[in-house]
Amino acid sequence: MLSGFLARALATLLGREGRSLHLKAAMAATGILGAVMLVGSWAVVAAEEGTRGANLTTYPRALWWSIETATTVGYGDFFPVTFWGRVIATVVMVVGITTYGMVTAALATWFVGREQKRRHRLAQGAEELYDETARALHARFDRLERMLTGPRDQP
Amino acid sequence: MLSGFLARALATLLGREGRSLHLKAAMAATGILGAVMLVGSWAVVAAEEGTRGANLTTYPRALWWSIETATTVGYGDFFPVTFWGRVIATVVMVVGITTYGMVTAALATWFVGREQKRRHRLAQGAEELYDETARALHARFDRLERMLTGPRDQP
Amino acid sequence: MLSGFLARALATLLGREGRSLHLKAAMAATGILGAVMLVGSWAVVAAEEGTRGANLTTYPRALWWSIETATTVGYGDFFPVTFWGRVIATVVMVVGITTYGMVTAALATWFVGREQKRRHRLAQGAEELYDETARALHARFDRLERMLTGPRDQP
Amino acid sequence: MLSGFLARALATLLGREGRSLHLKAAMAATGILGAVMLVGSWAVVAAEEGTRGANLTTYPRALWWSIETATTVGYGDFFPVTFWGRVIATVVMVVGITTYGMVTAALATWFVGREQKRRHRLAQGAEELYDETARALHARFDRLERMLTGPRDQP
Repeated sequence: MLSGFLARALATLLGREGRSLHLKAAMAATGILGAVMLVGSWAVVAAEEGTRGANLTTYPRALWWSIETATTVGYGDFFPVTFWGRVIATVVMVVGITTYGMVTAALATWFVGREQKRRHRLAQGAEELYDETARALHARFDRLERMLTGPRDQP
Repeated sequence: MLSGFLARALATLLGREGRSLHLKAAMAATGILGAVMLVGSWAVVAAEEGTRGANLTTYPRALWWSIETATTVGYGDFFPVTFWGRVIATVVMVVGITTYGMVTAALATWFVGREQKRRHRLAQGAEELYDETARALHARFDRLERMLTGPRDQP
Repeated sequence: MLSGFLARALATLLGREGRSLHLKAAMAATGILGAVMLVGSWAVVAAEEGTRGANLTTYPRALWWSIETATTVGYGDFFPVTFWGRVIATVVMVVGITTYGMVTAALATWFVGREQKRRHRLAQGAEELYDETARALHARFDRLERMLTGPRDQP
Repeated sequence: MLSGFLARALATLLGREGRSLHLKAAMAATGILGAVMLVGSWAVVAAEEGTRGANLTTYPRALWWSIETATTVGYGDFFPVTFWGRVIATVVMVVGITTYGMVTAALATWFVGREQKRRHRLAQGAEELYDETARALHARFDRLERMLTGPRDQP
């Protein structure tokens, strides 16, 4: 079950076709989040450096802090204490939360789309039925015309 | 890819038309959250002021606290210790969480709507096909009538 | 804008009709969350009481802790230190998260439903067009029959 | 209300049929999350062991830590201090968040599906109406043919 599920998910992620808005938005948000975390970790160290009581003083530490901030876990082992450090933290938080929103919404859209494909197939069945009816009515007209012209042309 | 995506998102946000319920609700929730955070920061300082062991004692500090509270990060560097301070914190938390819910739901609705527009175009194709069939049947009637009246009118 | 929005939201919440599954589920989850928080606060005090280093020792404190736990803020000013206290905390967390999921999903369903109502109106337009076509075809048959019977009955 | 709701939810979870993608994905994510938490708790103790200032030193403690990490509560009573401990924490956070996204999206899909089933019934009504129209038009042809052949065959 799982391997088939992963295979399908990967095919959608790697394949060119089928990349609709929700997939693009979720991937863009994840990319932006990664960039914001990498740059934000560097910027927060620059902002906090030299401040008394600051704990975000090295890049690896700041990277770990950006992870627990973006995921909104916030253990409290590291946090900014300067104005600019807190502005950067706010950006990391907001981008993080928006990214989960995008991913959750993209998942919902994917699930809803799969459910509707099933129903779409039903709708296509209705369309075929409709075509058949149109053909049947035309056949009735053909027969009617033959009835009207037949006895007159064949003496 | 990204610039096109942002352009479309901005056009929807700034344009008058196309502002449906989900967009209005997400924008209203964001606005309310901003107001709750600004007012809540001021109110929490008023509530905590003068209490022994209180750490939410200045407005800038309280504003930072309201950000980490609304995003549910909660480092624990600042937190209310009085009854009313905690009531205000609860309001900030609940409004914050509801806002993300609204934004996530609005994103999902936007994505689902885009997917359905594609399908809607398919449905319109079916409607055109239907119109064509109706016209064809009328043409058959015209021909049948001409067959019935023709030989009688033209002697 | 806002008052109209709130009026509509309230009408849906208070009105009997229109209470579909998503609304019922979100309301049930919110109710369960409230009950779990009230009972959990009492239970966590009972579990933690008398343990060395415990900080969840009074009901009002535990109630505040249950709020910051259910919203996943987790400042770290209060937390359980015993096995049963942590079991109760896990229940509060899981019920809290599931409730936001329910509320977010219900909001998305509400938004999507509103968008589809618009499209549904379009579909109804198509149905009316369809009825009209059916009537027009029947009228053609009526005329054809009159053409066939008329000249024979009226000598 | 609640018992009926739970009964329906259980029937969907336990029944074989009706297990669509969103249900499978949510269940798979929950299963993976459970495994990641159990293995991650063991791994984080192995990573942190013997490090000065480490607080994640026993398995039960680490299990509790994995719960507050996966739910993004993060009290800050326990947190990793080593590189590998933080890598494991990151995995627990990301899997945790993705799982809530999956569950929320699955709930939304379930709710939306229920709403659409109602509308689907309406669409079926339209289809039945369509069938009836087709039958009525065929009946008109039958009558027309009888009118054309009748007077000639019966002398």
